[in-house]
Amino acid sequence: MHILITGAAGMIGRKLTERLVVERELNGAAIDKLTLLDIVAPARPASFSDHVKTRAADLGVPGTAAKAVSERPDVIFHLAGVVSGEAELDFEKGYWVNLDGSRALLEAIRAVGDGYKPRVVFSSSMAVFGAPFPHAIPDDFHLTPLTSYGTQKAITELLLADYTRRGILEGVGIRLPSIVVRPGKPNKAASGFFSGIIREPLAGHEAILPVAETVMHTHASPRSAVGFLMHAAGLDRAKLGPRINLNMPGVTCSVGEQIASLRKLAGDKVAGRIRHEPDALIVRIVDGWPHRFDPQRAIELGFKVESTFDEIIRVHIDEDLGGKIAA
Amino acid sequence: MHILITGAAGMIGRKLTERLVVERELNGAAIDKLTLLDIVAPARPASFSDHVKTRAADLGVPGTAAKAVSERPDVIFHLAGVVSGEAELDFEKGYWVNLDGSRALLEAIRAVGDGYKPRVVFSSSMAVFGAPFPHAIPDDFHLTPLTSYGTQKAITELLLADYTRRGILEGVGIRLPSIVVRPGKPNKAASGFFSGIIREPLAGHEAILPVAETVMHTHASPRSAVGFLMHAAGLDRAKLGPRINLNMPGVTCSVGEQIASLRKLAGDKVAGRIRHEPDALIVRIVDGWPHRFDPQRAIELGFKVESTFDEIIRVHIDEDLGGKIAA
Repeated sequence: MHILITGAAGMIGRKLTERLVVERELNGAAIDKLTLLDIVAPARPASFSDHVKTRAADLGVPGTAAKAVSERPDVIFHLAGVVSGEAELDFEKGYWVNLDGSRALLEAIRAVGDGYKPRVVFSSSMAVFGAPFPHAIPDDFHLTPLTSYGTQKAITELLLADYTRRGILEGVGIRLPSIVVRPGKPNKAASGFFSGIIREPLAGHEAILPVAETVMHTHASPRSAVGFLMHAAGLDRAKLGPRINLNMPGVTCSVGEQIASLRKLAGDKVAGRIRHEPDALIVRIVDGWPHRFDPQRAIELGFKVESTFDEIIRVHIDEDLGGKIAA
Repeated sequence: MHILITGAAGMIGRKLTERLVVERELNGAAIDKLTLLDIVAPARPASFSDHVKTRAADLGVPGTAAKAVSERPDVIFHLAGVVSGEAELDFEKGYWVNLDGSRALLEAIRAVGDGYKPRVVFSSSMAVFGAPFPHAIPDDFHLTPLTSYGTQKAITELLLADYTRRGILEGVGIRLPSIVVRPGKPNKAASGFFSGIIREPLAGHEAILPVAETVMHTHASPRSAVGFLMHAAGLDRAKLGPRINLNMPGVTCSVGEQIASLRKLAGDKVAGRIRHEPDALIVRIVDGWPHRFDPQRAIELGFKVESTFDEIIRVHIDEDLGGKIAA
């Protein structure tokens, strides 16, 4: 099996790559080739490297997508995209990367023809939804994004569904909740603080909290996100039906509950490193995001996630901190 | 006030033009200029012609949209598009006209800048929804189109909402039910028979019914469609809020009830001109369409429609047949 990952240099892309390289198989099929694509060259994994090709290229540039699919990868994880904050600040870049790049990929697949019909797993986002919301968002809630990022994700979902219906590919869009705890440096996502208030204090640094502790949100760990992607790649088409874009499950809690988990696992000193500093732009963006979901279809289709925010913090300590916490 | 109509040579475009030329005003503002754009040159109206400019051009071709908005029309009725059957049969043409053309128009408006912020009324469609459906589709039902046409309309709605949120324009998308009775020749819309079974028998011709009489559907007259467009152009932004794409009201009835109305108004001989001839493609497309709506927001916002299918037939007899029926 040949797997292509776009956005492979991003956080989820790297973790997915690591997992695939360790397991050497996906849903029971042996992986014999892995192509890693991103705007910057993705790192080559230490092992399995004879089977890995890395490329730096922009999907929106004519020819890039065609080249990416010319070797007919069986499964494509389409993770490439700019994050919410950046898409909001840079209108043209957001549409170029998140919409034009995605459409170029789908069109390149269509152009191959000749019976080529890859499984395409697209990392969408709960940002396809926009306030006001019911208490919990049902699977059939309408798409009224309140950010350009959410708009671009929703459009790509619609394209993916139409290309699937047309028999050009087999698409699955998975709407990820906020992925926490993100390792590494803060990025430009407006949701970055949900990770920052856990990651930075655990690393001995101060963290800024730009919203109120009462803000409710739904989270999943990067390990769960990778699990969603791999599970989506193996879903039975017949069970999936025509509604190929799915709300993923997650752990719903308030920012205050996140902090309480941190305090419980790491102590008062660590939790004391969070500083409140409201940011009007982030407050506005986050206010327009959904808080809670009722993802019945994903649960029926077998997607798994953590049960508590404690578990989400433990995944971070385990995967990114080698099991250790700075006092 | 300067008004631009794209798709002005189409049926709704022509009826909208006629009405604007007669009224010489839109929601209380005098019209001093009317620009009619279509892929084929729209007919110049008999009166008011000093104030009317007609142009044949393809919005998707670079430069066309920029030229169309260069004189900064205050209101743009964006009606241009290929119909559902054609978009389904010709993948590339559908995306080119319905998506690329629409996006080019929005981008051209953005490029004008300098405080230019027109009202853009977009004729969307109930085809943004896809089966399975609840008994009546609520205003917050999700977008899962089952045709490329519905996909292209849904994407344009999402773009229109984002450009509106960004302050680039003031968009309103109105999801039209099936517009009947369409005058003139049959077109390639899969929904064409809903008009054909009324129009053709009234004109003394046989009509083909490709679906069962039990098929339920929601209709509005062309006069109502024009009324929706004009009303949308005058909506209060504050009342509209961020959810700018609206389900329009209509008359819900079965094909059998349509035929009963025809029989009541025109007699057995006329109604006898309908011949049943199932068409698998049309049956499949129509099965995926919604039947019934609960368009609360549109009703609250003051959109008006006929109350019975009898009234819809009477509008056709009045507007298109000069009040007369062939025996």
